Amino acid sequence: MAEENVIYVGNKPIMNYVLAAVTQFNNGASEVVIKARGRAISRAVDTAEVVRKKFLTDVEVKDIKIDTETVKTEQDEMNISAIEIYLSKP
Amino acid sequence: MAEENVIYVGNKPIMNYVLAAVTQFNNGASEVVIKARGRAISRAVDTAEVVRKKFLTDVEVKDIKIDTETVKTEQDEMNISAIEIYLSKP
Repeated sequence: MAEENVIYVGNKPIMNYVLAAVTQFNNGASEVVIKARGRAISRAVDTAEVVRKKFLTDVEVKDIKIDTETVKTEQDEMNISAIEIYLSKP
Repeated sequence: MAEENVIYVGNKPIMNYVLAAVTQFNNGASEVVIKARGRAISRAVDTAEVVRKKFLTDVEVKDIKIDTETVKTEQDEMNISAIEIYLSKP
């Protein structure tokens, strides 16, 4: 998958990510992946739900993966949960 | 699925939910569902990851569903995202 079809959800308003996803589908993408880590995971789910329920009702959730990533800080390592939501358009 | 195999994740420490899930598997459950809404969604993912990476390494993520639920408040209705994580043990 092309890197431009991946949306990393962070702390911005959800609509930013929703519009990014809608734009990619409208530009011809057949699949968009929404990724997030830690507390932003809830916002990634919000993003996916708003895209498919409010904007592009033919978009489906094709797959959802969860994983644990290890993040290195200055003194330590910590584990953080991550999610990938695969949206596809017929 | 029996209702006792469903764990609702809220605002308590994640270990509460992890231990609830581990206990259910150890009591013979072959499937446990972890559910959460809104901001607790990130904690549901944390719970699933800790269960299968730290405690019961044979447990797998069988399915993940996301949806939007409508919650009625006194004057209004609001939409809230929800997640269901299906964990299974062979």
